[in-house]
Amino acid sequence: MRATLMYDAGDVRVEEVPDPVLQAPTDAIIRVTYACVCGSDLHPYHDLEATPEGRRMGHEAIGVVEQVGSDVTTLSIGDTVIVPFAWSDNTCAFCRDGITTSCVHGGFFDGASSATQAEKLLVPYADGTAVVIPAGTDESLMPSLLTLSDVYLTGHHAAVRGGVEAGKTVAVIGDGAVGLSAVLAAKQLGAETIILMGRHESRTDLGREFGATHVVAERGEEGIAKVLELTDAEGAHIVLEAVGHMPAYEQAYGIVRPGGVISRVGVPQYEDAPVGFTSLFGKNATLTGGPATVRAYIEAALPQVLDGTIEPGRVFDREMPLAEIAEAYRLMDAREALKVLIRP
Amino acid sequence: MRATLMYDAGDVRVEEVPDPVLQAPTDAIIRVTYACVCGSDLHPYHDLEATPEGRRMGHEAIGVVEQVGSDVTTLSIGDTVIVPFAWSDNTCAFCRDGITTSCVHGGFFDGASSATQAEKLLVPYADGTAVVIPAGTDESLMPSLLTLSDVYLTGHHAAVRGGVEAGKTVAVIGDGAVGLSAVLAAKQLGAETIILMGRHESRTDLGREFGATHVVAERGEEGIAKVLELTDAEGAHIVLEAVGHMPAYEQAYGIVRPGGVISRVGVPQYEDAPVGFTSLFGKNATLTGGPATVRAYIEAALPQVLDGTIEPGRVFDREMPLAEIAEAYRLMDAREALKVLIRP
Repeated sequence: MRATLMYDAGDVRVEEVPDPVLQAPTDAIIRVTYACVCGSDLHPYHDLEATPEGRRMGHEAIGVVEQVGSDVTTLSIGDTVIVPFAWSDNTCAFCRDGITTSCVHGGFFDGASSATQAEKLLVPYADGTAVVIPAGTDESLMPSLLTLSDVYLTGHHAAVRGGVEAGKTVAVIGDGAVGLSAVLAAKQLGAETIILMGRHESRTDLGREFGATHVVAERGEEGIAKVLELTDAEGAHIVLEAVGHMPAYEQAYGIVRPGGVISRVGVPQYEDAPVGFTSLFGKNATLTGGPATVRAYIEAALPQVLDGTIEPGRVFDREMPLAEIAEAYRLMDAREALKVLIRP
Repeated sequence: MRATLMYDAGDVRVEEVPDPVLQAPTDAIIRVTYACVCGSDLHPYHDLEATPEGRRMGHEAIGVVEQVGSDVTTLSIGDTVIVPFAWSDNTCAFCRDGITTSCVHGGFFDGASSATQAEKLLVPYADGTAVVIPAGTDESLMPSLLTLSDVYLTGHHAAVRGGVEAGKTVAVIGDGAVGLSAVLAAKQLGAETIILMGRHESRTDLGREFGATHVVAERGEEGIAKVLELTDAEGAHIVLEAVGHMPAYEQAYGIVRPGGVISRVGVPQYEDAPVGFTSLFGKNATLTGGPATVRAYIEAALPQVLDGTIEPGRVFDREMPLAEIAEAYRLMDAREALKVLIRP
């Protein structure tokens, strides 16, 4: 089959690799029908060191079940399924808590031997991981359903962990697909004021359609001043940080209201950060977030997509075949595309 | 009047200073009847640079109202009051949120021109700040009532911000007076398992009486392993960090359960700390806490002390006159005393 491999920063290739084979009775193999490129794929695209064996790429997928192991009971050959970016058994103590990304049998497709920007995908713990899309679902809904594999529910995770609820003032840092998803999720959870911090007008326009009440294009100290101005100098109850770089973190603690919450879903590209008296502690700010526990949210989000309540697939502004995925990376890196849908 | 001044690390003196005078119509002046030395007073005791003018010390007090400004309406001359370690107007947006330590008119007695280890104290925004103790309250309850000015309610703040509730497993890092208070508060909030990390047996014995179900004397990697062993390798739902030094923070993220909460009330003696994928983010851990919003909790805690439900004043193991306060600092620094009550 063909799969996407990255060999070095900026070096993405589609190549023939062996088809996946079942390795455990709890595995399934799907034929990938929809995949996409994630903002987090751009991190290795920028800084991957030379990797002679190639790194398999992609962690978002919808596909059709082709093979199941002998212990798989909830999936049948021919089912169309959503596969979240992390696999999980959905039965361990952490899964029962809803923290599926910390599953004791779990793992991330990103960087694993099987990844989604490919024709086929091995899904470990398939019963726990994959969720069946009802038969007969309109094909036009597939892009929105694909966002339940990562991007929309990552925005939702930010909003849920941040405690977004009716009447709150929410600031979203980042106008990438996760930031825009966080706007949509915050709106669904009842946020009254949603300030989107971003400077790409075509993106912030979509953000307004998703529910942003204000857009702040300024960054750094100017951006902080602008948000404080919009909030009577009080700051935002909840800041959803959808970038992962230090300037976004600094922005976050600059605009969070005393007693407020910073919820991060941008994978941090730093380990140490300010958390002392002058950043978080002094104003009793809370820092939360982490890898989105997508699996725990899919069942509740699925009907919202199926009945048209939300249309998170609008973050896809391009569609390309697998063969052209290197160009998809380039377009997203150059910010010429917001998020590219891939059809293997 | 006599007041406590610190001139340098380890150099604490009681000296004559001018009596405080009302400066604003919202001020009150109290005659301090009970004060004490706080664990956080030991930070400048260790590292204060030479301060020729002296630094006024102390931020916990009970006292009798001697003078009130013309705008003060809720206090009368002769009332006995609890004064929290921070003053606040109790009316601004942040006070209404319960984040009284971020009051727009607020401030901290610690390091201010008026401080509590003295015969008299100027209380700004006296209506908002001071809480009257019912007339006729038994004198024997005063040590416990004094803890509502800081230490007990700081432990309570850790537990509240951490989300302690029935059935949770809580780990408390630090067997100082705040850590022991956090144990007592966690017990009050219904924690099922309370693991106290500390190595001073006389203190951890009091911790057991306050509600600790387990004591872990080990530190570092050994301490982490021990807590994981006690929690079926899952970690603690909530970690209350009552120290403020980096090793305690590292311990906290080592023992927190995926999806769990670290709540800090030990004033951080660092600004930057690990918060990235391998510490907080990867396991969706939440970091919260800050200066205790003591003022917001006093009304609810007062009846618990008055009716004997809790006896947080047991953290005082010595009582000394103001004249001997330098010895009180020395005893606490040497860990010969847990917390010293001062009678000005």
